[in-house]
Amino acid sequence: MASKVTIADVARYANVSRQTVSNVLNSPEVVKEETRQRVLDAVEALGYRVSAAARQMRTGRSRLLAVRIETTQDGMNVFDRFLHGLTESAARSGYRVLLYTAADDRAEIDTIDQLLGEFEPDGFVLTSTHHGDPRAAWLAGRGLPFVSFGRPWGAPEGVHPWVDVDGAAGTETATRHLLDAGHRRIGFIGWEPGSGVGDDRRAGWERALAAHQLDAGLVLETDGSSAQGQAAARELVERGATALVCVSDSVALGALQVVPDVVGFDDTPVAAAVGLTSVSQPLTEAAARCVELLTSRLSGRLPDRLPDRLPDRPAATHVLLTPSLVIRKEPRS
Amino acid sequence: MASKVTIADVARYANVSRQTVSNVLNSPEVVKEETRQRVLDAVEALGYRVSAAARQMRTGRSRLLAVRIETTQDGMNVFDRFLHGLTESAARSGYRVLLYTAADDRAEIDTIDQLLGEFEPDGFVLTSTHHGDPRAAWLAGRGLPFVSFGRPWGAPEGVHPWVDVDGAAGTETATRHLLDAGHRRIGFIGWEPGSGVGDDRRAGWERALAAHQLDAGLVLETDGSSAQGQAAARELVERGATALVCVSDSVALGALQVVPDVVGFDDTPVAAAVGLTSVSQPLTEAAARCVELLTSRLSGRLPDRLPDRLPDRPAATHVLLTPSLVIRKEPRS
Repeated sequence: MASKVTIADVARYANVSRQTVSNVLNSPEVVKEETRQRVLDAVEALGYRVSAAARQMRTGRSRLLAVRIETTQDGMNVFDRFLHGLTESAARSGYRVLLYTAADDRAEIDTIDQLLGEFEPDGFVLTSTHHGDPRAAWLAGRGLPFVSFGRPWGAPEGVHPWVDVDGAAGTETATRHLLDAGHRRIGFIGWEPGSGVGDDRRAGWERALAAHQLDAGLVLETDGSSAQGQAAARELVERGATALVCVSDSVALGALQVVPDVVGFDDTPVAAAVGLTSVSQPLTEAAARCVELLTSRLSGRLPDRLPDRLPDRPAATHVLLTPSLVIRKEPRS
Repeated sequence: MASKVTIADVARYANVSRQTVSNVLNSPEVVKEETRQRVLDAVEALGYRVSAAARQMRTGRSRLLAVRIETTQDGMNVFDRFLHGLTESAARSGYRVLLYTAADDRAEIDTIDQLLGEFEPDGFVLTSTHHGDPRAAWLAGRGLPFVSFGRPWGAPEGVHPWVDVDGAAGTETATRHLLDAGHRRIGFIGWEPGSGVGDDRRAGWERALAAHQLDAGLVLETDGSSAQGQAAARELVERGATALVCVSDSVALGALQVVPDVVGFDDTPVAAAVGLTSVSQPLTEAAARCVELLTSRLSGRLPDRLPDRLPDRPAATHVLLTPSLVIRKEPRS
């Protein structure tokens, strides 16, 4: 249960003023190392715990990071693993994760606005960024700290901190894996053009083929379903494809009914269950980097916008992580 | 952004005292209906918003419900759907969900203890209850409001509010489905005995067989993996089984390699992907009921322990929901 120890008790025990205790807890950088240690020892010895409400009233900090929980749709979603990593990383930095749901961008902005009034989160983590996304501009316009898991597709890259996984690098590796096995007619099954993530994944496949002076004509778009994946695979095989790189495991699952050498994307439980080779995103790492960028800014180490880098502490505001290929079956050409 | 309107502004606008405004916001039942309406009109007209910190200092209520986010393991986990439902239902009742992680029961109790000091959540939602679970007793011993998604296995049922899904009813329906198709030698692949959830699911299979005076001898235990599921299926088929009911989709996935008529449990994305018939838990409903039980108690409608029920409002403290069978392929006997 919450302890009854007060700041005054800590101050008395450490033989400092209450203001000094408050500084140690809220702005430790202004306190001398020796004093700070004495206060922290007193905090520990007495079991002093800061009430969130009291701290928030005093410091204006809630120690809460807010993130939208996404619907899982067909369950082939990587968000739950990201969220687990986010919660763990946040806890290690002294923050907790506050969840909300929202049906679309507009509803999400309204919910964020409401949360600001109710819980005053210190920062926000946006996910599923896309072209024409109004959320980042809204947050940035109000000077609110946030990071996105996903690039600011179509917007200037320097605008805000982001973490993303290099989808093109993933499909490039997947395509090279099939090339190495001797395949030369490798198709791509994607989504409708215009999605940042989908176009990026397609670009990696094109890049790998271009490096071998191979034609990138064997490509079809789908709505992302397994049924359309299967139909697209059938058509691409008719046009001569011997192997397929897919924008998602869902599409790949359909393609797998048509041809054995298929690579999916996201390494979902379904890929593991059916023995599908798939590109795997480093989600725990991505979550940790999101927390790092956000809490760095919250503790004042990163300015809101940073064109320049400090020479002794290169401040990363954009992190692009490289995915890996989980090979479950060797392809045959 | 947070509004600058204060309680004093609202009081002036509504022509009441600040205490009255505070009462309307925190103990509306003590204020006359007409006055309450006038204050609420003023709140709306001025766009007054209660700061979480200010409200918590005043009312001792944080409007936060805390829940542990579970690791997904093999991804065949239903927790993410439950969590989504919980976040939505909580929001509709004016609560937000605070996440934490913990490696085991002990670590979870420590984390809850820490959260109480830091954020003072109003209530807790426990998941994955099991025999010898120390968490419920710890919370109950401190008078902290909580609900569990999962029965208090092995503990007296009346101890605390819980919501669960009737696993036995699910496997009973699954078994009856196979019986209806003409199968008479139906095996069960389970987990090691001693898990409340696993024993319950096995009991439903036994019940369905007993109703047909059939022997419940075709049963094997596994560690829950697909590999052991496959091995168990092979052995049960050798012993004469023609169809199998499984404790999970993971086990069922292995069994499906051996015999076509298999029913899994949890209706995971993998079941959908491979066309596996599976028992589906009403997770959104379960989450909504958890929020309902918890917020009823928080708003004082439910006492801590309730042996008696009010005649005009039967207070449900235990909710056992019935799962459904998602049939993806008709069995042949």
